Parts: sequence; C-alpha cells; structure tokens
Amino acid sequence: MEVDKKEEIASESSEEQVVNPWEVSAKDGGKIDYDKLIDQFGCQRLDESLIDRVERLTSRQPHVFLRRGVFFAHRDFDLVLDAYERGDKFYLYTGRGPSSEALHLGHLIPFMFTKYLQEAFKVPLVIQLTDDEKCMWKNLSVEESQRLARENAKDIIACGFDVTKTFIFSDFDYVGGAFYKNMVKVAKCVTLNKAMGIFGFSGEDHIGKLSFPPVQAVPSFPSSFPHLFPGKDKLRCLIPCAIDQDPYFRMTRDVAPRLGYSKPALIESSFFPALQAKNGKMSASDPNSAIYVTDTAKDIKNKINRYAFSGGQDSIEKHREIGANLEVDIPVKYLSFFLEDDAELEHIKKEYGEGRMLTGEVKKRLTEVLTGMVERHRMARAAVTDEMVDAFMAVRPLPNMFE
Amino acid sequence: MEVDKKEEIASESSEEQVVNPWEVSAKDGGKIDYDKLIDQFGCQRLDESLIDRVERLTSRQPHVFLRRGVFFAHRDFDLVLDAYERGDKFYLYTGRGPSSEALHLGHLIPFMFTKYLQEAFKVPLVIQLTDDEKCMWKNLSVEESQRLARENAKDIIACGFDVTKTFIFSDFDYVGGAFYKNMVKVAKCVTLNKAMGIFGFSGEDHIGKLSFPPVQAVPSFPSSFPHLFPGKDKLRCLIPCAIDQDPYFRMTRDVAPRLGYSKPALIESSFFPALQAKNGKMSASDPNSAIYVTDTAKDIKNKINRYAFSGGQDSIEKHREIGANLEVDIPVKYLSFFLEDDAELEHIKKEYGEGRMLTGEVKKRLTEVLTGMVERHRMARAAVTDEMVDAFMAVRPLPNMFE
Repeated sequence: MEVDKKEEIASESSEEQVVNPWEVSAKDGGKIDYDKLIDQFGCQRLDESLIDRVERLTSRQPHVFLRRGVFFAHRDFDLVLDAYERGDKFYLYTGRGPSSEALHLGHLIPFMFTKYLQEAFKVPLVIQLTDDEKCMWKNLSVEESQRLARENAKDIIACGFDVTKTFIFSDFDYVGGAFYKNMVKVAKCVTLNKAMGIFGFSGEDHIGKLSFPPVQAVPSFPSSFPHLFPGKDKLRCLIPCAIDQDPYFRMTRDVAPRLGYSKPALIESSFFPALQAKNGKMSASDPNSAIYVTDTAKDIKNKINRYAFSGGQDSIEKHREIGANLEVDIPVKYLSFFLEDDAELEHIKKEYGEGRMLTGEVKKRLTEVLTGMVERHRMARAAVTDEMVDAFMAVRPLPNMFE
Repeated sequence: MEVDKKEEIASESSEEQVVNPWEVSAKDGGKIDYDKLIDQFGCQRLDESLIDRVERLTSRQPHVFLRRGVFFAHRDFDLVLDAYERGDKFYLYTGRGPSSEALHLGHLIPFMFTKYLQEAFKVPLVIQLTDDEKCMWKNLSVEESQRLARENAKDIIACGFDVTKTFIFSDFDYVGGAFYKNMVKVAKCVTLNKAMGIFGFSGEDHIGKLSFPPVQAVPSFPSSFPHLFPGKDKLRCLIPCAIDQDPYFRMTRDVAPRLGYSKPALIESSFFPALQAKNGKMSASDPNSAIYVTDTAKDIKNKINRYAFSGGQDSIEKHREIGANLEVDIPVKYLSFFLEDDAELEHIKKEYGEGRMLTGEVKKRLTEVLTGMVERHRMARAAVTDEMVDAFMAVRPLPNMFE
C-alpha cells in the first residue's frame, strides 16, 4: 500500500515541481517556479517594505542576499520585526547536515546571511549539525557522521560567527534532557499519515526517518536549550534557511501552539544554481557542478571556464549584435550572489546584456571574486583551532548574547 | 490505506489471541494459549533440564517463579548459561512503564524474579523507566511521567535490589550520547512496514510511537551504558520480562547482528491474572481487578472475598462431593505465585481440589500471605529515601558489579 502512495507522490511530481529537504526538481526540466512554491507552501513573499524596515531597524545597508532577492520568502518575519521594534529580542537557528568533507559555495549562503543577521540584530544563534540525519539518510557510520560534523563546524566558524553569541551542536552529542523532552512532545502531535504526507515517506523507509523531524523541529523552542535560555520560554526564534527546509518548519509551526510555544519565524532563500545551470540546487555528488571551499585558484578558473553555463552568443559577431541572455547566464547569477558592489554588478549586466562585454570577461571577473572569497575562507578556516571548535560547542551560558 | 491495515490486524485478532505490549486478549474470551504463543513468537519453552541447570550453577533452590512455571519461555537462556559456566558473566535488563502511582502485585513479579537472578548469578542490572513511552501512549505530561517514574523507582528499590550492582534510569533523563547513537543505529535497520507489522501501528498513530521501539531496544547493548560497561561490548544481556514484551526484543534480536552486537537473551513470564479471572493481564485501570502495594489489610481482605473468582462449588454439599475446580480458581493461582512453601501449596491444592477445604479457608490463607507481603513491601518502601533513589539513578561506575 505504501508503494502505491509513493507512486502517487512520484506521479504528482512529474506534473509538478518537487521541493522537499531531499529532492529539488523543476517541472519538465525547466526552472523552479518560486512564486508557485510560495503559494504551494503557504509562505509569504519578502517584499521591499520589509527590507526597508530591516534597513531602518538595523541602521545598516541590507545584506546583498536581501537586496538581490536571494532570501525571497518568509513566515512571520514581520512579527519578529514588530517585536524587535518593541524591544523584544529573538534568537537565530540554522543548521547543516554534515554529509561531505568540504562545503561548496551553496552551503555557505545561509551561514553568510545568518552571520549578517547576528551582527545586525545583536542576537544569539544556535547551529544544529544533524549528524544523526546524515547517518540515517546517507548510510554513514555514527563515527564518520560525527567526524564530518566537526570538520563542517570549522568551515562554519570560519564564516566569522561571534563565539560569545553562538552555540554549535551535534545531535549525537546534544540530544537528551530538555531537548529530548521537546522531541517527544512534538512527536505526540504528528500522526504517521501526516508525516508521510509532509515528507513523502513510504513504508519501505526506515523508522529513523520518521523519528527525525522532531529533532529538526525542537531547536525552534528556547526551552530546548536550558543552558542558554533559562526562563525565556517566550523568546522568538527566527530561522534563516533554504526553502527546501520549509516542510520541517511547517510541521513545527503547526505543532507549536498545541505545546504552548511560539511558532518559529522563517526567512527563506532560493537555491544556488549548479555551474551547468541544471535545475534545483547544487549537488555535492557531482564535483564539477560546484565550487568548493577547498578548490584551488586553478580549480576555480577551470571550473568556471569549462562548466559555467553561458548566456553569451555562439559567435562574437552575434554577441555584439544581440548581447547575452542574462536570464540563463551562470557567471552573472553567481556574481549577483557574491559581488558586493551594486554599481559594478549593474554595469556588468548592462554591458554584457548589450553585447559590449564578452563571456570571457565576465568569467574572468567571477574567477577573481570567487578566488578571493575562497582564499579568504581558506585562511579563516586554517586559523580555526580545535579549542575554538570546543568553545563554540561547549554547553555553557552565553552571558552577553543580546549585546 | 492505513485504516485498512488496522482492520486487517483487528480481524486477525478476533480469530486469534492478541498479545503485544499494549493488548493481551485470548481467543473467544477463553484462556491465553501459551503453547501457541511460544509457536507464534518463535521462542522456546523453559524446560526442567534448564531449571535443574540453574539450580546447579547457582547452588540454590530455583525461584518459585521457575519451579512453578511462571517464567515459562526463553530465548537463548541456554546460551547465557553455557557462557556463565565458562566463566563469562552477563548483565540483566528489565524495566517498567510508569503509568500509575502505585504498583499492583502483577507489576512486582518481574522485579521479584530479577532480584533473585541478580543475587543468584551476582550480576549487574539496568532498569529502564520508560517515562517517554507513557507520556506518549497515556497522554501524560512530561513532568507527570517523570514524577511517576521516580515514585515507581521507590517501589522497585523496595524489592531489595543491590545498589552496588543496579542502575535505574528514566528515559527522559538518560536518552542521549551513546544511548542515542545506538537508537539511531537500530532505527536505521527497521522499516516502517516492519514496525507496523510487529507492533500493529496504523497511520493514525503518532510518530512518537514509531520512534519508541529503538528506545526499548538499546538497553540490550552494553555500549548504551558507557559508564557501566566500558570496553565490555561483548557482555551478554539477559532480559526477564512478561511475554507481551517479546515483540520489542524480537525486533532487537533481528537487528543486533547487523550492528555487530550480541542478541539479548530473554526469560519470559506468563501473565498474572486479574482477581475476577478475566483473560489477559491485570489492568491498572480497574482498581478492583488488582491488589495494589498501597492497599490496606482491610482492602486486601475485601477484594479477595468479594472479587477473587472461586473454583469452589455453589453449595457446601456439592463442594464436599466433587471438590474445587483448581484450573479456574484465582486464590489457588495467586498462592502458587506467592506462597513459598511447596508442601503447603500441594496440601492446599489436594484438600481443596478434593472438597475437604472450602473456598473461605483458601481465601483466608491467601489474605494472610498477601497482607504479609504487602506489609513488608510498604515498610521497605517507607524506608526508601530520596538519597537512595538518587544513588540508584546516579550515572556512575558500579565497581563491584560482578562480585
């Protein structure tokens, strides 16, 4: 019977785009329709007025990822800002499933953005490393999942988080006590049918998968962290994440009021495209589809020149005449994520789009930008000591976390 | 579809007896057919030769519950004895779901027997209080489940366990770390279909139920207790329990070799009957079906006189003529659990069965036996201090646990 259910889901997906934590695929091999996704998921578009409000409340220019629509959807972000305006703080929660040794650029996006939010709003942050999830989904051993979690923690720390405001935890280490009690409370509120509907699980899936959603849900509740938020049960939680994580938090928001907890707010990003501009998000399984933080300058240059899908025309003559198709051009897309300078980006788009700039020139600029970024990351990561990892992962109060 | 599955299970059960951790009912309202249960579950009958072997290995008379077939089935108990004979020790694991304030006599049976095993074999013991399970199944709050766990721990301690060899733990307190890692390893090996088959879960059940079997499984593995059994990963586990818990450990034994762990051995009891001799096990929900450790002497006398189902005949004349039906007589059944003296029990059965002894006399003797037993329990429990509970529940090594 469960097989029928799986087929049902699969046949729906061939007609519709599929976005869930384990699969991202567009309709008929086209582009992800984010407007449709907002409708389907029931979240809200992050509009200009909200971004203006962020700028006003934080007295700084909004992050590139806000200005350029990388984070494009939200749930209750407006309520978080209302509360913040009244003087009520919140905390941030984000995470990573540690399934690979090295991160690619797509993995860095939520962390770069979360670092900005932490600095701009002066709020504490919890980062969940779901080594239990990856052990179950990727068939890694417990030990290997934990080793990857710790390696990935170094890359995350290298993004520049403030150790006095940040708690990084591995599920294998931290599940228990108040956290486990909240897991049980959440699990009581979700039927098997509901979980199968939200996550598309089938009867052939193992029960570990059914057990996991509460693990990802409960960092949304301050009472899961008694060493950080004692007596602060009403503290709101804001979750920056890619939109494929929305199903977990739809479930969490559904359950929260029944437990007397606040619903977590979300601010959700689109996917970072693969170099070849296949649909969906970058995949860690094809090394040529992504630029890794461990790639050398030569790797980066080669990958961009060989694999980055170009919207430029086949011949220089034709290109000069009609210009590049910016809609499909990966170098321009990547620059819009990582080139800070708005004026320069506009200049490139105009010159390239009107054929005065060639693909090679744009790729050269992207290579510079990414090489610099990866080199800075590499240096920052090399400076992360085991003692620093221990400090971020220590279960202890963070006395100045709201300052 | 899950509803169909539930109906399928239900319709099977009207033809067959149902024994699982949450339901015990005989076929057509008759008696539980334990021979059939052994076949159905695939466990083995605990025969005379094994009991003789226990006597020889422990140099003491086997416990009443062994001599009289209360513990009647096993899995690999012979292998545990083989290993013990070679000088390899084992550890004991039993537990309780803390769903009620006071225990009834049926609840005491596994603990009385486990105490005997601990003393006779000089082995350590872990006792799991599944407060998480009861929170999920009985809809108790986390706090109430934990309070009941601690209250029940006092009754368990009052059975006389050796604090230098015994670790009692609440799941809400202890789940985490090595224990959680083993939970994830087990969960990876059990498909949803399999869990639904073993436990009869349906789509309308909450996912907490699906998450629970690994929690009850992993105390079977010594690596779940790094503070007790460091480096003793090959230590065998023996589980004394009522046979309704067999499904959990069938699953556990199925999974163990895939994780490189030993299968736990089991020694399994029949059910303690209700006073009214309804089928199945005593129920905590009908206070008149059971004698509680909190009942007064007057309560006990009243309950036995008013509710204990008698196999005696309607009139004294008829009784003198054909004697009592011992097969259905609850006072005799209860005496066979709790009257230590084999000769006296045989005498009562003979005299009563042949009509020379009347129901009133047997009930009087049972009242004496149970009143004494309950009084001794009450005094022992009153002597259990909070410090003693803390000592049994402390996460610390037990240095002399095999002596």
